[in-house]
Amino acid sequence: MDAIPDTHRDLLDADVAALSTIGDDGFPQVTMVWFLLDDGKIKLSLNSARTKTKNLRKRQECALLVVDLENPYRYLEIRARARVDPDDDYAFADAVGRKYGTDLRTRDQPGEGRVVVTLDPVRVWAVKLR
Amino acid sequence: MDAIPDTHRDLLDADVAALSTIGDDGFPQVTMVWFLLDDGKIKLSLNSARTKTKNLRKRQECALLVVDLENPYRYLEIRARARVDPDDDYAFADAVGRKYGTDLRTRDQPGEGRVVVTLDPVRVWAVKLR
Repeated sequence: MDAIPDTHRDLLDADVAALSTIGDDGFPQVTMVWFLLDDGKIKLSLNSARTKTKNLRKRQECALLVVDLENPYRYLEIRARARVDPDDDYAFADAVGRKYGTDLRTRDQPGEGRVVVTLDPVRVWAVKLR
Repeated sequence: MDAIPDTHRDLLDADVAALSTIGDDGFPQVTMVWFLLDDGKIKLSLNSARTKTKNLRKRQECALLVVDLENPYRYLEIRARARVDPDDDYAFADAVGRKYGTDLRTRDQPGEGRVVVTLDPVRVWAVKLR
């Protein structure tokens, strides 16, 4: 994530971001997600049953918007290709759980799994409108 | 916008929202935008030269995310088809300008124009995770 200027690097410590994927119906799907900066990469822990996960398996093109909640005119837009890898032993989910003080295992139903989504940025926009 | 439950109607008075469009390259584009509830419809005033405007002219499928900045776990996701109409006399731009205390004419360069983007919702998600 070297492309992020110093003026916006603090946003990588934010709690939540808006993830946009593209669905089978051709509409964007946008939801708020947790994320973790891990080994220099933005990664998400997603439940395998979620629509956004299914979308990313089919179309890796996505965008992550990290907004300064105290000044929403300042934000990062990261367009990226998403790589979806299994997280069967919840190793990454547990790392996310430590950031947020929760156990992600308790959030999944029987039969559901976890994946690690790693964002490979293709373009980063650091915006400050005011 | 009858589909929006009472628990989330206040978000329609928010200042900014995240608009996701889809670009020629197949990536979502997500930017923060102003919006106005006008005659029961969510409308945006966009500069005609912007990428998001060009995207919507080619692909009307979009999504608007309106997040409670004080509790980003509460938000509205509105998937919609966008209709793009000219606003050559800045009539709608001036209505938006009144909401935000500014003159949108001063924000456009010579040769640029204004359009009204009207969202026709196809699906609304009212989310409250905590």
